Amino acid sequence: MSILVVGSVAFDSVETPFGKADEVLGGSATYFSTSASYFTNVKLVAVVGEDFPDAHITGLKGRGIDIEGLKKVPGKTFRWKGRYDFDLNQAHTLETHLNVFSSFNPEIPESYKDSPFVFLANIDPELQMKVLEQVNKPKFVACDTMNFWIGGKPDALRKLLKHVDLFVINEGEAREFAGEASLVKAAKKILNGGPRILIVKRGEYGALMFHGGSVFSAPAYPLEDIFDPTGAGDTFAGGLMGYLANTGDVSEANIRRAIIFGSVMASFNVEAFSLQRLNTLDLTEIKNRYSEFKRLTHFEDI
Amino acid sequence: MSILVVGSVAFDSVETPFGKADEVLGGSATYFSTSASYFTNVKLVAVVGEDFPDAHITGLKGRGIDIEGLKKVPGKTFRWKGRYDFDLNQAHTLETHLNVFSSFNPEIPESYKDSPFVFLANIDPELQMKVLEQVNKPKFVACDTMNFWIGGKPDALRKLLKHVDLFVINEGEAREFAGEASLVKAAKKILNGGPRILIVKRGEYGALMFHGGSVFSAPAYPLEDIFDPTGAGDTFAGGLMGYLANTGDVSEANIRRAIIFGSVMASFNVEAFSLQRLNTLDLTEIKNRYSEFKRLTHFEDI
Repeated sequence: MSILVVGSVAFDSVETPFGKADEVLGGSATYFSTSASYFTNVKLVAVVGEDFPDAHITGLKGRGIDIEGLKKVPGKTFRWKGRYDFDLNQAHTLETHLNVFSSFNPEIPESYKDSPFVFLANIDPELQMKVLEQVNKPKFVACDTMNFWIGGKPDALRKLLKHVDLFVINEGEAREFAGEASLVKAAKKILNGGPRILIVKRGEYGALMFHGGSVFSAPAYPLEDIFDPTGAGDTFAGGLMGYLANTGDVSEANIRRAIIFGSVMASFNVEAFSLQRLNTLDLTEIKNRYSEFKRLTHFEDI
Repeated sequence: MSILVVGSVAFDSVETPFGKADEVLGGSATYFSTSASYFTNVKLVAVVGEDFPDAHITGLKGRGIDIEGLKKVPGKTFRWKGRYDFDLNQAHTLETHLNVFSSFNPEIPESYKDSPFVFLANIDPELQMKVLEQVNKPKFVACDTMNFWIGGKPDALRKLLKHVDLFVINEGEAREFAGEASLVKAAKKILNGGPRILIVKRGEYGALMFHGGSVFSAPAYPLEDIFDPTGAGDTFAGGLMGYLANTGDVSEANIRRAIIFGSVMASFNVEAFSLQRLNTLDLTEIKNRYSEFKRLTHFEDI
């Protein structure tokens, strides 16, 4: 089954303790699409400026991503500049230039409207809602957000969450949104507000899924070096949603598998700047790392 | 098989967001012994002052703990006072009165010297070494330490580690000791220095075991409220070593099981002040929570 994703396509300039990259391809929808493209067909909705090179468009097409919904408009592409110190869980934003992204008003092409899986990457929750109003009863909707919207548009976010199956959010943001120091209590509160499933991303500590009374704890892959964490969350979501769409199965057992695939894709992504590593993967590498996650977490019954 | 433990017995005064406790029983050897006593025979070596009440001694005996090595000497018992804010991973020490503990020089009773399992709780690494010199070729030795000794006696610690099978340490301390920001690199460096196995404690994020080329990631149990984290690390070590000694099996597969038992015991301990919860457990509760850890981490093969 196919996935519709709405989010950003951007140029990132990133400094980490391991090096720097200038104006490389980034953005939530880019990372998500590339990651999900290993599992299923992806239909991308985003906006770029006239400065966006054809080579990047060719690259996305080369991964089989449908770019009918990628609009090129007058102006410059969204740019983000950030730095990571040794605590790679924490991005320090140096500059944000929304450019053409500031007037982004996603229009869903006719050929996208029956997508059974929908991922609303981190954009204004009012726009996320507008996307849902344009699609035809998707089987499964997931969304992300960030502290900027939690603080700035909490009511729009709460309204959106009533129409969402899966909410993916950072640990600190989950606590902030629920106003609870205890993550378990925060999760309960958030689930009461609408979504059937909550996934809390914890960076190098992995992820927690809350679903009814059930909790699933997934580790992160213990890498020697995290080269650049940019895009890890969207890459995680891409692997997760990609696997769900590939199998068409949204049972809890399959969502657990999908979380591991998301973690696998994120673990590759952080090994290099931009999409360098994501663009050169193959299915055998992905499956092998899935097996490594099995070994990483395995213990026997008593 | 039995375990010899050397460490502190103390009175703790603790404040958390959930309440406070004054001069309650604490100390590394107390938490360790009580936790391990659910699995095997424990032989305790520690020192207390004349103010240490018989009721506490009766309590330890009631858990089957051998207290021949618990010395009562003139002076006052070790006292620690601390506070936890909402970040329960971080203890703020308000007062430390070593009292009789400042001249602690552990003497191992004859009847303890053949203990096949030895746990050296967090004390001066020179004293930890002196303990090892008094025992007869134990099958398995584990030790803990803290930043105070990493900074103050790194050479004594390095010497000790050559005689230790398992080193248990906090995440930040592992990085500090190895001088490496990457935990995976820090682990490799530490394992090169002697111990066969390294377990890194990560508080509410669980634990990581490094053993040869293998890594095991264990989650923490997601509790609604962590009432008081004091003693969680020693309770973890007690469950871990207790299960290893009970089974006499130090294979990697069994150490993975033991880490889960350690995590189970720690998850109970933090539900109440002092040893309140640890003293009222039964084996069925322990086994049930082990099964919950299974469900918490389970995902199927692809």
